[in-house]
Amino acid sequence: MFILNTNDSTPLYRQLYQQIRDQVLAGELPAHSRLPSIRDMAVELAASRNTVEGAYQELCAEGYLYGKSRSGYFVSDIDPELVSSTQLVPPQQDLRPGPAESYRYDFHPARLDPQSFPSSAWRKCLIECLRSDSGTFSRYSEPQGEWGLRRTLQYYLERSRGVRCSPDQIVICSGLQQGLDVVAQLIRERHVSVATENPGYHLPRDLFRNHGFKVVPIGIGPDGLDLDALTSSACTVAYITPSHQMPLGQVMPVANRLELISWAKKMEGLIIEDDYDSELRYVGRPISSLQGLYPQGDIIYQGTFSKVFSPALRLSYMVLPRTLLHDYHRLFRNYLCPVPLLIQRAMILFMERGHWEQHLRRCRIYYRKKHGAMLKAIEQSFGSSARVIGQGAGLHVVLELTDGLIDEAGLVERAKQKGCRLLPVSDFYASGSPETNKLLLGFGGVDMDDIPHGVQILSTLIK
Amino acid sequence: MFILNTNDSTPLYRQLYQQIRDQVLAGELPAHSRLPSIRDMAVELAASRNTVEGAYQELCAEGYLYGKSRSGYFVSDIDPELVSSTQLVPPQQDLRPGPAESYRYDFHPARLDPQSFPSSAWRKCLIECLRSDSGTFSRYSEPQGEWGLRRTLQYYLERSRGVRCSPDQIVICSGLQQGLDVVAQLIRERHVSVATENPGYHLPRDLFRNHGFKVVPIGIGPDGLDLDALTSSACTVAYITPSHQMPLGQVMPVANRLELISWAKKMEGLIIEDDYDSELRYVGRPISSLQGLYPQGDIIYQGTFSKVFSPALRLSYMVLPRTLLHDYHRLFRNYLCPVPLLIQRAMILFMERGHWEQHLRRCRIYYRKKHGAMLKAIEQSFGSSARVIGQGAGLHVVLELTDGLIDEAGLVERAKQKGCRLLPVSDFYASGSPETNKLLLGFGGVDMDDIPHGVQILSTLIK
Repeated sequence: MFILNTNDSTPLYRQLYQQIRDQVLAGELPAHSRLPSIRDMAVELAASRNTVEGAYQELCAEGYLYGKSRSGYFVSDIDPELVSSTQLVPPQQDLRPGPAESYRYDFHPARLDPQSFPSSAWRKCLIECLRSDSGTFSRYSEPQGEWGLRRTLQYYLERSRGVRCSPDQIVICSGLQQGLDVVAQLIRERHVSVATENPGYHLPRDLFRNHGFKVVPIGIGPDGLDLDALTSSACTVAYITPSHQMPLGQVMPVANRLELISWAKKMEGLIIEDDYDSELRYVGRPISSLQGLYPQGDIIYQGTFSKVFSPALRLSYMVLPRTLLHDYHRLFRNYLCPVPLLIQRAMILFMERGHWEQHLRRCRIYYRKKHGAMLKAIEQSFGSSARVIGQGAGLHVVLELTDGLIDEAGLVERAKQKGCRLLPVSDFYASGSPETNKLLLGFGGVDMDDIPHGVQILSTLIK
Repeated sequence: MFILNTNDSTPLYRQLYQQIRDQVLAGELPAHSRLPSIRDMAVELAASRNTVEGAYQELCAEGYLYGKSRSGYFVSDIDPELVSSTQLVPPQQDLRPGPAESYRYDFHPARLDPQSFPSSAWRKCLIECLRSDSGTFSRYSEPQGEWGLRRTLQYYLERSRGVRCSPDQIVICSGLQQGLDVVAQLIRERHVSVATENPGYHLPRDLFRNHGFKVVPIGIGPDGLDLDALTSSACTVAYITPSHQMPLGQVMPVANRLELISWAKKMEGLIIEDDYDSELRYVGRPISSLQGLYPQGDIIYQGTFSKVFSPALRLSYMVLPRTLLHDYHRLFRNYLCPVPLLIQRAMILFMERGHWEQHLRRCRIYYRKKHGAMLKAIEQSFGSSARVIGQGAGLHVVLELTDGLIDEAGLVERAKQKGCRLLPVSDFYASGSPETNKLLLGFGGVDMDDIPHGVQILSTLIK
């Protein structure tokens, strides 16, 4: 028996649909039994024929009923055992996550200063793209990313980073992570193990492991990656941050770069150069890229807009060596570029109009000041009890206590209570939490005026 | 000898840097030889000390020179053999790709009608987000995607698709491709082979193969995936489009869905339900999701904004079963959401304000008309020589010639010359190009008024 409730907001045909469906699933309507005709059912329910027809049609479309021409509608044969085991209801957990913790003194090294974002120019570019081209919504981007953006990036990379490539080698990505996802699939037929820096950025470590590679952490010396350790590791792929080692800040000198290139040639190996923040250098010009030293070699160059522009944008790029292009097109010929067309178009405009270069100049000046304030604050609060290693670039400095180790977990917790966020150095180590005498002090997310007091608090906590 | 050219636009310090660097690399300045002091060099070049100091500092930072306190600057020891082998220059290929081909009659099944996009409402939401929150630029999104978007999607999916989940099971993705990239990594420890529909969408086939899975194509019958073939395939993962088979259009009836669920339980298998376009159904309500039949089972539900909203947006989502959440968090705890925060925020606003439901209603009405026009045109041009299978939903219909096969490659080429784009059915087959009597006729990208004439052209070409 079916009952329709006209006070219910659910449409009548839907009510009927649900009741019949439930009875079919519960086995109350036996298989192949015939339902009343549309006319009879309509009379029975005092409903319109349309209502009944709508319900029957939907039940047929989903396979609960079947129709036979001129003889009516019948219940489908549905195995009751299959049904009964699906009737559990999952627990509903929908606790809204608490608001993100906010700190007055945020020393996290991956924080940008909200002040530094060129909101007005970027907004104008976005809005102009929104208004000018309705095709921006209904079509797909070029698979490797818009040619105009790749062309603009090629000029920029050649000029500012010494990267030598053509636009057909550039792939627009939605962040390092997505770029490395592509790389992992691209190289998995030829390589099984990847060397990563230790300490180093955790993402590549996790990522290559998730793709089934053996990941071998290689130590860092004063000149960056330990090349002897790399050579004896038998890895054939090396992921490195040669121009500003993450997190310790070393620059790999040219002799080591050449040695690394020679290693790659000997091993038929591959170098992945992550050049994540080298726009931000406060002493001299940015260090030239490793790729530019040997553009015809097996070097994948990774760059991003996350560090110096906006992490919320999810826009990055990579330069593939020519030797990988054939495989790239073979494997990914049907893939789509993951970056919204609107964002690509707006970035082309932003760069073509010179906003990008202007933004870089402003950022360098702005962050140079904060960097200076940080060094001064450290000098004042720590004096000779600490020295600064890894400085002059990026968004953080590395402080090293001249004597004694830091109880890191304890310090992070006590700092939190005083309003200071610290990212533990141990997060960058491949295994376990080593004893450390180092502290990462990001200056992107702290107000200029708050730097001295924040550093003062830390020095009090450490002493 | 170094010469500075004040008429050159390159800064003087940079000119000096380049000349010294080139001489070091060429071996003209021997290792450990001492350079003139800053003061002497400045005198020699008639340049300022700052110029020389800038060049020396940069050469030191990059490792071409080294400094010793109180004794000056020396040339680093760089292996000349390593250098000489890097001096090749890559060929520059930067041919701009030709403009995308444009067709008057674009029957590609993945084309949306540019008219259908709610430009004005979407633009307003975007601009409002741009103006309201500068934090939208400087911070990262929540790793699984913004909670607000996941919450809104949960409501929507439950109401419209019968999907049962909580927001913590939803992952915001930049398209099916990126979602399946995550899935592939998530399941690779437990599964080695994936069953896909044949004919079926090519992307999942390529994608799982790129991740090292064995991909087994399974045939399609009138009720969708051939479940007997699946069972005997020994695959433990099945990727399917049960509510509107891509490309043939079948709906998998509830009895088969229950059987598939039972298969998954027996095999400890996994079902990937791709519900790509089920918002667009012109007869009755959309078919309910498979996930909703057994929400506690191992079913991954994939949905997208590409088909009914905009492919240029790169916005999609997936619902993970609770059983996979632990592994998901373990593997991807450090990953970032690939969708720009701005796009997520704008979509929350767009949905909360009811624009999304309104857009869906309009699309259904609009595309229903075009769908009707397409059926009418086929009836008029083909009469009894063809019948339409796979209709009533989505953005294309499937036409089947009642007798005779189509010379597909030839037809596609001849159609092109007449201004008609056809996507060959054979693109959807896993191997080779089968003989076919089928034609995919998309109606998203053709003007309503052009449909009759376009179909007329095709029928003339075929006869």
